[in-house]
Amino acid sequence: MTNKMFVVLGILLVSFFSNAQEKTPTYLDDTKPMEERVEDALARMTLEEKIAMIHAQSKFSSPGVSRLGIPEFWMTDGPHGIRPEVLWDEWEQANWTNDSCTAFPALTCLASSWDRDLAYAYGKAIGEEARYRNKTVLLGPGVNIYRSPLNGRNFEYMGEDPYLAAQMVVPYVKGVQENGVAACVKHFALNNQETDRHGVNVVVDDRALYEIYLPAFKAAVQEGNAWAIMGAYGKYKGQQCCHNKYLLQDILRKEWNFDGVVISDWGGVHETEQAIFNGLDMEYGTWTDGLTMGKTNAYDSYYLADPYYEMIKSGKVGTKELDDKVRNILRLACRTTMNSTRPFGSFGTEAHAKTARNIAEGGIVLLKNEHNVLPINLSKTKKIAVIGENAIKMMTVGGGSSSLKAKYEISPLDGIKNRVGDNVEVMYARGYVGDASGDYNGVKSGQNLQDDRSPEALLKEAIEVAKEADVVIFVGGLNKSDNQDCEGADRLALGLPYNQDDVITKIAAVNKNFIYINISGNAVAMPWVDKVPAIIQGWYLGSETGNAMASILVGDVNPSGKLAFTFPVKLKDNSAHALGEFGKEGEVNYTESIFVGYRYADKEDIKPLFSFGHGLSYTTFEYGDISVDEKNMNEDETIKVSIPVTNTGKVAGAEVVQLYITDVKSSLVRPEKELKNFEKVFLKPGETKTVNFTISAKDLLYFDDAKHSWIAEAGKFKAIIGASATNIKDSVKFNLVK
Amino acid sequence: MTNKMFVVLGILLVSFFSNAQEKTPTYLDDTKPMEERVEDALARMTLEEKIAMIHAQSKFSSPGVSRLGIPEFWMTDGPHGIRPEVLWDEWEQANWTNDSCTAFPALTCLASSWDRDLAYAYGKAIGEEARYRNKTVLLGPGVNIYRSPLNGRNFEYMGEDPYLAAQMVVPYVKGVQENGVAACVKHFALNNQETDRHGVNVVVDDRALYEIYLPAFKAAVQEGNAWAIMGAYGKYKGQQCCHNKYLLQDILRKEWNFDGVVISDWGGVHETEQAIFNGLDMEYGTWTDGLTMGKTNAYDSYYLADPYYEMIKSGKVGTKELDDKVRNILRLACRTTMNSTRPFGSFGTEAHAKTARNIAEGGIVLLKNEHNVLPINLSKTKKIAVIGENAIKMMTVGGGSSSLKAKYEISPLDGIKNRVGDNVEVMYARGYVGDASGDYNGVKSGQNLQDDRSPEALLKEAIEVAKEADVVIFVGGLNKSDNQDCEGADRLALGLPYNQDDVITKIAAVNKNFIYINISGNAVAMPWVDKVPAIIQGWYLGSETGNAMASILVGDVNPSGKLAFTFPVKLKDNSAHALGEFGKEGEVNYTESIFVGYRYADKEDIKPLFSFGHGLSYTTFEYGDISVDEKNMNEDETIKVSIPVTNTGKVAGAEVVQLYITDVKSSLVRPEKELKNFEKVFLKPGETKTVNFTISAKDLLYFDDAKHSWIAEAGKFKAIIGASATNIKDSVKFNLVK
Repeated sequence: MTNKMFVVLGILLVSFFSNAQEKTPTYLDDTKPMEERVEDALARMTLEEKIAMIHAQSKFSSPGVSRLGIPEFWMTDGPHGIRPEVLWDEWEQANWTNDSCTAFPALTCLASSWDRDLAYAYGKAIGEEARYRNKTVLLGPGVNIYRSPLNGRNFEYMGEDPYLAAQMVVPYVKGVQENGVAACVKHFALNNQETDRHGVNVVVDDRALYEIYLPAFKAAVQEGNAWAIMGAYGKYKGQQCCHNKYLLQDILRKEWNFDGVVISDWGGVHETEQAIFNGLDMEYGTWTDGLTMGKTNAYDSYYLADPYYEMIKSGKVGTKELDDKVRNILRLACRTTMNSTRPFGSFGTEAHAKTARNIAEGGIVLLKNEHNVLPINLSKTKKIAVIGENAIKMMTVGGGSSSLKAKYEISPLDGIKNRVGDNVEVMYARGYVGDASGDYNGVKSGQNLQDDRSPEALLKEAIEVAKEADVVIFVGGLNKSDNQDCEGADRLALGLPYNQDDVITKIAAVNKNFIYINISGNAVAMPWVDKVPAIIQGWYLGSETGNAMASILVGDVNPSGKLAFTFPVKLKDNSAHALGEFGKEGEVNYTESIFVGYRYADKEDIKPLFSFGHGLSYTTFEYGDISVDEKNMNEDETIKVSIPVTNTGKVAGAEVVQLYITDVKSSLVRPEKELKNFEKVFLKPGETKTVNFTISAKDLLYFDDAKHSWIAEAGKFKAIIGASATNIKDSVKFNLVK
Repeated sequence: MTNKMFVVLGILLVSFFSNAQEKTPTYLDDTKPMEERVEDALARMTLEEKIAMIHAQSKFSSPGVSRLGIPEFWMTDGPHGIRPEVLWDEWEQANWTNDSCTAFPALTCLASSWDRDLAYAYGKAIGEEARYRNKTVLLGPGVNIYRSPLNGRNFEYMGEDPYLAAQMVVPYVKGVQENGVAACVKHFALNNQETDRHGVNVVVDDRALYEIYLPAFKAAVQEGNAWAIMGAYGKYKGQQCCHNKYLLQDILRKEWNFDGVVISDWGGVHETEQAIFNGLDMEYGTWTDGLTMGKTNAYDSYYLADPYYEMIKSGKVGTKELDDKVRNILRLACRTTMNSTRPFGSFGTEAHAKTARNIAEGGIVLLKNEHNVLPINLSKTKKIAVIGENAIKMMTVGGGSSSLKAKYEISPLDGIKNRVGDNVEVMYARGYVGDASGDYNGVKSGQNLQDDRSPEALLKEAIEVAKEADVVIFVGGLNKSDNQDCEGADRLALGLPYNQDDVITKIAAVNKNFIYINISGNAVAMPWVDKVPAIIQGWYLGSETGNAMASILVGDVNPSGKLAFTFPVKLKDNSAHALGEFGKEGEVNYTESIFVGYRYADKEDIKPLFSFGHGLSYTTFEYGDISVDEKNMNEDETIKVSIPVTNTGKVAGAEVVQLYITDVKSSLVRPEKELKNFEKVFLKPGETKTVNFTISAKDLLYFDDAKHSWIAEAGKFKAIIGASATNIKDSVKFNLVK
């Protein structure tokens, strides 16, 4: 007994002094190389700690290693703002009062700004918000390609063009991650419809996969250095994307050398063995809702929880894959919570509101403007009629996981009222009733728009108001309800809901100064387009909605956005719908291959309602002659294409100069042209700037699926400068010489 | 329009480049001196942000400045473990599954270890737990002086002696704060009873205030550098302690130069103007419970919220005091969340469990041990009877704000069973039923101890079991229910509840190997003390309760704790009760002045049941002769007192050698002796160590309230070495020469 007792009594002193002398362990020392830290931490972890780390412990968190001081991982939905806190294991909001965020414009708006600086500013600001709220991972941005205007979730994505999406996602990701918060690019991959989203198997050829659906993800990973990626809900080659060998192992890990974490979409895991071997790192959201309240911990039954643990214990599988998953997660920790130099973030600030407004003002697209209806000249305006439910409808709530608790949201009506001041009378009429409930997917907006009047009475009132006004601003479009711009289901038709076509037509008939603002994240049909002089694509603009809109309407800001996707006249003008391959359950076959968006319109010579890249200004731009510094280039050389652009109008403005490239002759069929660069150039009245684009062989590549490699074929190419995909200004030919 | 538009369009580029070039602002740069950071942040804040920062936003948090990236402040109850998460504005637990903490022993146990290293280890470990849970402030430790054994909250404090409490609180605070987590020393001051705790006015002379009630706070502030202090609920000089000019301004700020934050106890603020001017910095817990759920934000009506704001707006008060409060809070931020070198903490670890067990084993006090009943010799023991409700009762839940959700709690019965193994039969009988509900102050322990048998049947069963056993371990005492060891009310009597005296007497009569383990944070009466051979003071020991107890019982660990407070035979042996000045509503007059605890027993020559400083060992210690290196000292000199101590028994053990000093003759009446130093010395069998104490003039001081200053009077003093306050080993005289 003597010795044992002495040992016990002595332990404290010994441990006290050894602690005092012990130097910081490698994994906690962020002056050490990350891989050393990762291996050091891994070597200290038990099997149980590793298993715990690879699946959720609550709706939005997963464990670190509390024993080792490795912090927990907290996720937050994005991509448009920081989701409010929810209860531990329920979707219900936790009613905190410190989580009212800045609502940024939807990513469709950002993409339509064609402004890389705005994308960086967006990422930086939302990353600051995530950091201040102590989130490790922002679940965004989304870069699924806009394949059909009916996809309910398009508003969260960056349009139809892989190059534009890639260019916009990279600075967004960098901006987020400067805060020590991981961006989680989603949904990898092929999540291009919401119908049967958990089960649908996408059949797509390799060419379309590599040329259309993957480039934005690849850029996010390789240029943006995204630290996280989210598996999609659906299937590819019959295997769930969240544990898909082809996407996660072959492409993401091997071809792209991704060293970050793969996080499942919430409930996107369906099988343990595939989840083990096919590259998933963190399982989130599988079943469970309130089940842990006083009951067994449902998270233990996750595919990557007890089932995996039992397989290891029984010797059925080894631990190599587990260690790799944990390495990826530890890397995430080193990059985020365990990087002690990361800044502190900020939340709901005026600076973020300003950023949100800049993005909104930069992304709003002036689609049509006849007879100079816009901008509204306030000195000649006495009465403005604002009509339409969307002028008063709260849009930051609803739509699915991107739903927010915004610090504030200025409605279009309030924004207009605030801007025009007391000298102009602003009259409002609803015109129609759409979704008045204020509830979306169980989230209550707190807004009640009940109105029991008949459609006829509402229309009558609106017509009367419109007759009386000098100018009519109709704010319509879609909203965040099911089957509109909302996660979980697709739209049912291209047309506007709630009989708006009729309402718009009748009101436009009584006032020639009619402005239609389309609120949506998707293209809509506009059968009345010729009867309306001015059309603005207004997106979902977040907290600063009304202010940004008012700025554009009265000309404080000159619109400079360009459409990130094609507005077809009718659904069949879209390739997926022309081929009958959208919105099916079970399986969808992307038979259009690479001919998505303007690539299809070009191929079939279909005139869109509004083209990809289209957007007007309150000034005019004149393009000079294109020039090229060399007519021939080899694969290691670059050539420079230049074009002068002049602001020939009376106000400052910005033009998005677009470079498309055509492969004049190629072994495989190629699109008529493909976007390969752009620059948004800001010009004072009378000012000329020359826009220079550098072309290298990478701009000439196509993906040869037979060879599984990118090919730049020798021969003739054409560099095309356009103000949109259909408004071509000039072009020049050059040769790739081998 | 031209210019304006250009400005707007240009803003992004300008801000982008200016951001990129801007250097880190001073307040975010933790290489800058703290005061510069504080002033820089203060200068950037708006009036509204300042007002928001000085009061709560939820049950346990208050805002930072989200605009500036100054993090929120999150408080957690201690002092024995990290409180589980609660809902935003309700006391109800949030049912998180990641917040099951290590439960450490109660502070009375820590104090009774007389081990400064254990206090540091405690603080370090609980601070790590707080840090891992992202808490800014740990609401503890508590150092209110043990004035009466009936105070319901004594278990959370550090005993009756100001020197001992001061010595133990300093390393605890340092240990906590090494984690970048503030310790919040509480309850400042004079919170020595729970009866009428919000209203009672304490009348106390300055001498007792300075000599007895303040030294531990002063040491925490001046030696421990505590970053936060909590105002008490009651009143002093008729003014609430949370906004008490005398305590907070005159003493804490001016005399002690405290530069940390003063936080109100939850609901301890009663008046705006006093809260403004009398030194409170952060108001917490005033009214509100669930009121913010969909209603007006009740926190706006806090005394330091809208009422203060309105007074500033109307010009009734200035902003100087507000700025000072905010400075203190910003300093807290710089020391905690905005110190990027702070470690990451850890939570619920084996290391913390080991620390908890070390503290438990170091603090358990062997009060009596006749006939070598202890330690239990397992090789000669076939059957052990464990009797008593407290052998199975969960004690980490209940007791008020210190209630925990422990990761685990080993009951005494389970600890004993685990230790003795299969060769010894452990029989259990309840013996009596106390509080079986398992609910405390609305917190459910999840334990149901319902037992509907009659008291007679329970006793009969226990007697039968006791008769059969080789040794009986009776685990009784108090629990965490109201009117026992629990916040919010005081005990009603010194005696044991639930008729335990009778049960103990009857069981002890049938088995001479009877061990009584007293679970409590307070002294209890033991009218049967002479009929029981062995008594252990078992405290509340947290997660490792049963393991620590079993270690002591079988002699794996040799007990070495010493009582941190006197066990009186009867209530009237305590000065507060002798004078009828305890537990009254409205006003309590501390007429005993400095004669608290052993100071009173010495003065009145009352023999306690167990003395302050008392505690036995399984070995024996022999003290040699005291020696002093100089007989005379002046105020600038020190002298050294030495005494050799030898372990004369057969097992290793530790003895707490206590130095008391007597002022042989003084102008003001002084206690017969006062503890001025101690050392816990670990000795192998046969080993001798000489314990040295250095005495300086500060050990000779008394507080002269007429002069309001500390005086060391020239003349004779006596240095006394004791193994307890009544077990004096030797003494030596010396002179202070002036």
